[in-house]
Amino acid sequence: MTASCRSLIDDKWALRIVSALGAGPHRFTELKRAIDGVSQRMLTVTLRSLERDGILTRTVYNVMPPNVSYALTPLGTALLEAATPLLAWTTEALPQIEAARLAYDRRAEEALPAR
Amino acid sequence: MTASCRSLIDDKWALRIVSALGAGPHRFTELKRAIDGVSQRMLTVTLRSLERDGILTRTVYNVMPPNVSYALTPLGTALLEAATPLLAWTTEALPQIEAARLAYDRRAEEALPAR
Repeated sequence: MTASCRSLIDDKWALRIVSALGAGPHRFTELKRAIDGVSQRMLTVTLRSLERDGILTRTVYNVMPPNVSYALTPLGTALLEAATPLLAWTTEALPQIEAARLAYDRRAEEALPAR
Repeated sequence: MTASCRSLIDDKWALRIVSALGAGPHRFTELKRAIDGVSQRMLTVTLRSLERDGILTRTVYNVMPPNVSYALTPLGTALLEAATPLLAWTTEALPQIEAARLAYDRRAEEALPAR
């Protein structure tokens, strides 16, 4: 995996922004609402990084009040397609992951010296 | 995307560890070498988290000297399969991303007031 692309995958919010934009263009506030836990600053920084990477476009509409819309580019759509199996897996695998966590915690508990 | 699975995808090192283990079981030192930039501490923490999630197993061999080996579980193999298109995309898309970055930086440069 190439170093400069790795930042795209490593970025905690990048895939979620791309996933949200898969439903169509969004304004900043719409993205902020769609992605729980993201701060204003991190959304701003990540959007700029994704724009620079050619993953999305940022369009300013000079209306009153002016607004800014973000949309996936063809490269962004290709990223979303490549990421979709992984995004889907996170939903399907949840029961197995939660069962594994319970079993792990039980084993850790049993390994503790008797109180 | 579910919150508790998101941590798996958000974790900067998780996909890289899973990707490395795709080639077969590894010892800690082998993983440390295979994943550039990971610290001893982050590799330890992430391996424990992935073991708890049921993604990999940790086997201790009581030989002299004793050694520990990490290997993907079937769930880990399923994660690797789901992530493979995205991992492949990062290599294929690199030229387009680097071209987009050059164009973005040139536009930003041109937008600066003449010195």
